[in-house]
Amino acid sequence: MSLRPQRTLQLPERARSMPASPIRKLVPFAERARARGIHIHHLNIGQPDIETPREMLEAYRGYDEKVLAYGHSAGLREYREALARYYVEQSIQVTADEILVTTGGSEAVLFALLAVCQPGDNILVPEPLYTNYLGFAVMAGVEVRPIPTRGDDGFHLPARAVIEARIDERSRAFLYSSPGNPTGTVFGREELLMLRDVALEHGLFIIADEVYREFVYGGDIHTSLFHLDGLTERGIIVDSVSKRYSACGARVGCLLTRNEQVFDTLLRFGQARLCPPTVDQLAALAALGTPSAWLAETRREYQARRDVLVDALQAIPGLRCTRPSGAFYLMAELPVDDAGRFCQWLLESFDLDGRSVMMAPGDGFYVTADAGRREVRIAYVLRREDLLDAVRVLAAGLEAYPNRT
Amino acid sequence: MSLRPQRTLQLPERARSMPASPIRKLVPFAERARARGIHIHHLNIGQPDIETPREMLEAYRGYDEKVLAYGHSAGLREYREALARYYVEQSIQVTADEILVTTGGSEAVLFALLAVCQPGDNILVPEPLYTNYLGFAVMAGVEVRPIPTRGDDGFHLPARAVIEARIDERSRAFLYSSPGNPTGTVFGREELLMLRDVALEHGLFIIADEVYREFVYGGDIHTSLFHLDGLTERGIIVDSVSKRYSACGARVGCLLTRNEQVFDTLLRFGQARLCPPTVDQLAALAALGTPSAWLAETRREYQARRDVLVDALQAIPGLRCTRPSGAFYLMAELPVDDAGRFCQWLLESFDLDGRSVMMAPGDGFYVTADAGRREVRIAYVLRREDLLDAVRVLAAGLEAYPNRT
Repeated sequence: MSLRPQRTLQLPERARSMPASPIRKLVPFAERARARGIHIHHLNIGQPDIETPREMLEAYRGYDEKVLAYGHSAGLREYREALARYYVEQSIQVTADEILVTTGGSEAVLFALLAVCQPGDNILVPEPLYTNYLGFAVMAGVEVRPIPTRGDDGFHLPARAVIEARIDERSRAFLYSSPGNPTGTVFGREELLMLRDVALEHGLFIIADEVYREFVYGGDIHTSLFHLDGLTERGIIVDSVSKRYSACGARVGCLLTRNEQVFDTLLRFGQARLCPPTVDQLAALAALGTPSAWLAETRREYQARRDVLVDALQAIPGLRCTRPSGAFYLMAELPVDDAGRFCQWLLESFDLDGRSVMMAPGDGFYVTADAGRREVRIAYVLRREDLLDAVRVLAAGLEAYPNRT
Repeated sequence: MSLRPQRTLQLPERARSMPASPIRKLVPFAERARARGIHIHHLNIGQPDIETPREMLEAYRGYDEKVLAYGHSAGLREYREALARYYVEQSIQVTADEILVTTGGSEAVLFALLAVCQPGDNILVPEPLYTNYLGFAVMAGVEVRPIPTRGDDGFHLPARAVIEARIDERSRAFLYSSPGNPTGTVFGREELLMLRDVALEHGLFIIADEVYREFVYGGDIHTSLFHLDGLTERGIIVDSVSKRYSACGARVGCLLTRNEQVFDTLLRFGQARLCPPTVDQLAALAALGTPSAWLAETRREYQARRDVLVDALQAIPGLRCTRPSGAFYLMAELPVDDAGRFCQWLLESFDLDGRSVMMAPGDGFYVTADAGRREVRIAYVLRREDLLDAVRVLAAGLEAYPNRT
């Protein structure tokens, strides 16, 4: 065999610009710390520790078909009908034919972008943002334009003029999560009405990621995009069972749209990948039968954790954070030169009686250069006593950190 | 509330060009036929009727974690290690670190295209082709350039010059399936060596879809892309458990690459969507423990069906088809004006003692305009007696069809 020399291999721009997970570079440091015998409190991840509802797990155990077959590309009919009943209970008026089941909320976001954007178009996303939006945007060839929000405003939307200044002729959609990852912020009805008015005036879609819908605390009410009038054509909701039922590994999400043209387009994307996983959909169907007490108890637990965490964090000198109303994350500003360096230092050079803490550096949640450099995202998916100990370690680490500001 | 009039909504070009399933337009006719009490033999679908191995189904029933958590973005380590052992047994030399588990072979194809192509690039695909490649190409912004193959040549690759004439400076990869969907053709070592030489000379990747690897009949040997030398950088294999274990609903596939740069890119696409479904991966792991007798028996069954089907088809006057060596499909040329119209007529206007037959019109498997208009794809995932009856119905239908040629 004689082969001519290969051309030099360089992957194209899209491949190179695809972002890695923002905590990926810290993982080796955490592994080395563990190898040194350090116990790491993981404040960096959004994997709930709450047990998956029994009803859901039993659906896996009860699977009794003989052939594990493809389902419908839009999702199993029975599941879609049950989902429609769930949404109507949430005052979200959709029918089974307006629901497309997806492989996690991830695929839902990707399909929504593919459906409403052409490569080279842009979307507007409140910042800090869920980092995987950036990956889906690269996959869809779409530019992400950040809408700036500020911690001191609880990361609520800025004034209409700030938003409108970022719209141009290639803008196609708003994309937001509420309750928000990474902020925990719950957008209120008034700010969503403002966003709707801007969207309709400029001919934009609104893609609302509502995967944390059930986790709103302290009497705040969750406003769904579909609680607003006027969005039959332009509104798309992204949802997922991952967080609601502590079932991240099921990979079952969905898209809601009342626009037939959009639904037909989403379905064609769905047909290309054949169907979402079948048994997991049956499990997600069973999850809808979880007693409402389970969700209420889970909500109470997260709220108690939030309060324990925020109280403890706010007692740390120089640390700034507000008390978010939903989800199980918050962004905190630290009195350090660079939160990424500090997070690495905690894993590499610090422990309190054999314990350290891992957090997600804030700059990974921003598109804007240099934004979020003193921030970290903290997830509260640990038991209260572990959260308290994690904050104790963090406080001691801040005391000891040589580049404290 | 006063809203200004919305701009007219038109979805962008990508959304409009996304292809629908090629059998979709026949579905309403099949439903109406069923409503009239007609029994439909489904020769149109690739959903195996073979029972999923017991080992795999028991893995669902045995799932006993308390929290259904995310797995690693590259797939569960234990599953990847077991996969590596499987591949080494197939003389495919890969390690667990060269395997990325995907949500079905579908996601594997999409990720491969996203990784090696820029929007506007093109890929070369032997035609007729697996139609969902067209959908993934639209999603990735990639043009599909067909490499023509002919039924009379058993749909094997054409001469090198025919292939090279289709390459230009935006060509980035070959993509083929072998054993092939929709043709059943198994590419031999010599033609794959030719393809490799062309790829290396022109700096192209080869993406080999080998999901039907285990279904090769009559002593033919399956040549995997990784059985060829020289493709460490440029070779990517797509695989899936869907067909091998009659587990289409599991949505577990994988990508193999020995190119670190490509693996790292694929992993970043994987991180964006977090992970493949967890329990399904455990089931796929268990499937690897299926006794080899199960696969041997399944292979014998498909081969027997192929022979029954091809013998019966070849006895129909004017119908042309060869005996393919693998998978469970074939393309047949019918003595009709237009196979799509004939398929619709069978469902709308014909029955033999209350039975009719549904096939996939061939033109859906071609990019080239007007190609495949007299062809149908026939899948043999029915029991032999049903296949024989389906061919009986088809033959009678051809006799009765007013636009027979």
